Amino acid sequence: MSLLVVGTMAFDAIETPFGKSDRIIGGAATYIALSASNFITPIKQISIVGGDFPQAELDFLASRGVELEGVEVKKDQKSFFWSGKYHLDMNERDTLDTQLNVLADFKPVVPESYQDCEFVMLGNLVPAIQHSVLKQMKTRPKLVVMDTMNFWMETAMPDLKEVLKHVDVLLINDSEARQLSAEYSLVKAAKAILKMGPKYLVVKKGEHGALLFHGDQVFVAPALPLEDIFDPTGAGDTFAGGFMGHISRTKDISFNNMKTAIIVGSAMASFCVEKFGTTRLKEISKEQINDRIQQFVELVNFDISLV
Amino acid sequence: MSLLVVGTMAFDAIETPFGKSDRIIGGAATYIALSASNFITPIKQISIVGGDFPQAELDFLASRGVELEGVEVKKDQKSFFWSGKYHLDMNERDTLDTQLNVLADFKPVVPESYQDCEFVMLGNLVPAIQHSVLKQMKTRPKLVVMDTMNFWMETAMPDLKEVLKHVDVLLINDSEARQLSAEYSLVKAAKAILKMGPKYLVVKKGEHGALLFHGDQVFVAPALPLEDIFDPTGAGDTFAGGFMGHISRTKDISFNNMKTAIIVGSAMASFCVEKFGTTRLKEISKEQINDRIQQFVELVNFDISLV
Repeated sequence: MSLLVVGTMAFDAIETPFGKSDRIIGGAATYIALSASNFITPIKQISIVGGDFPQAELDFLASRGVELEGVEVKKDQKSFFWSGKYHLDMNERDTLDTQLNVLADFKPVVPESYQDCEFVMLGNLVPAIQHSVLKQMKTRPKLVVMDTMNFWMETAMPDLKEVLKHVDVLLINDSEARQLSAEYSLVKAAKAILKMGPKYLVVKKGEHGALLFHGDQVFVAPALPLEDIFDPTGAGDTFAGGFMGHISRTKDISFNNMKTAIIVGSAMASFCVEKFGTTRLKEISKEQINDRIQQFVELVNFDISLV
Repeated sequence: MSLLVVGTMAFDAIETPFGKSDRIIGGAATYIALSASNFITPIKQISIVGGDFPQAELDFLASRGVELEGVEVKKDQKSFFWSGKYHLDMNERDTLDTQLNVLADFKPVVPESYQDCEFVMLGNLVPAIQHSVLKQMKTRPKLVVMDTMNFWMETAMPDLKEVLKHVDVLLINDSEARQLSAEYSLVKAAKAILKMGPKYLVVKKGEHGALLFHGDQVFVAPALPLEDIFDPTGAGDTFAGGFMGHISRTKDISFNNMKTAIIVGSAMASFCVEKFGTTRLKEISKEQINDRIQQFVELVNFDISLV
């Protein structure tokens, strides 16, 4: 009944207009698990780290209900490392350095104890690796959600298109939706992508919110207007964690519940960007999360009876 | 009890990725009046045109309840002309040509019959001209809404800051809000601008929707996701017309009603961009408008009880 998450657990070094971090803990699966664990446990994590990954971080995840049987530790190697720089428009970023390290030959094995997972979140990774995880599931999960990025569209499009056929919800940003579909209009892009396999498409637009497409239905979620977006790293993964955490908890995969899941994801992402790295995600309480979700109601509600 | 509108009535020549127009009817006050007249009449228009402005266009506006006593016709001169080109990202545009013509020495006179207007919409114009209209009003209107643009921030900032002191609602786009406040964060920009005079700030973000700021309150309205944005010219003015049309009709200047007004404005703007120039605005019915406003409810509504 639990949530399976696959993705990177890594080190990041980040520069934003508000400051600069040393090597800090990052990785898609780290953010997804931290975010989702507010809604559902256990989370069954699949990833790979080097001997340099702090035991304290693994222990913290375990304390949040994240099972680590599927996290391979290669003692004599280094963890994946990414370094990037953001500008004032935080929807754009430059990659300064990428060191694959342990990720170079990551061959995830789904432990037997993970086979009961009905919900699968494929964090951004080599498409063939995402696919290999799906192929190891003996029962087709109730819902498979996938994230990906422009890099795989440029280097592994056939593999990406193959795994997309087996995915229910694709979660990408606006420029990735345009690149994947070769359509500039996001409505046209969605129509094209919904023919590639996914029945639902979530387009993340950073500070401009997110769109959910399903058939002819559309839902628009705002981002919470914030004084400062301190560090957007991991915001998309945190969004995915909130989205998938909510759906796994409620076990309701209707369009209506996905709309609520997007609000939950947006609320979680709004916390993530308030401090560097995972700092904010580690300190928020369930009460703060509920208050913030409530803020989204006030943010978008209007009185149609006044028209 | 009616709405006073001041602004340009002009010719445009427009190029978008979807096509190119000859000289067509445009101007801020034209779009505002066409949009607002779906909600309130009479609209008391203040503008200036040359002898080249088609009588049929004036007659059409009159048939929609737009009073033209305040529209000066300079038979021997030419109307204001603007030509511009849009790219795929329609939030950006290049001005190809601007011919002031009659606008060069526009000194608007508010007719006596306009003095009963409780609602005033100052369309984008030289700030000193906007101010001169306000100064001619013998009774302080119930609500003054103003639009402006980056050009006036660069060439007439002191005049702009002066008129801002007398305005209730400022309606500008995101880059203009950043320029006016010298703040990148829109939340910080809003705080700064709300100290300049206006009690409400509406930030238009094109395809990303609009934000309403008032004190510590924020409201976010989406734009309707459209397959194609055919021509964004006049969308901001059409938004203003819908916003002000709704408020003038309901005579309710509460924050709550302004939220609904923003949805009405967004719905009107979503029609405007579907065809070149004013074409779409001239053909839509009240029923189509109501259907579209209803679409916005479906676009943003989510079930918080599912959280």
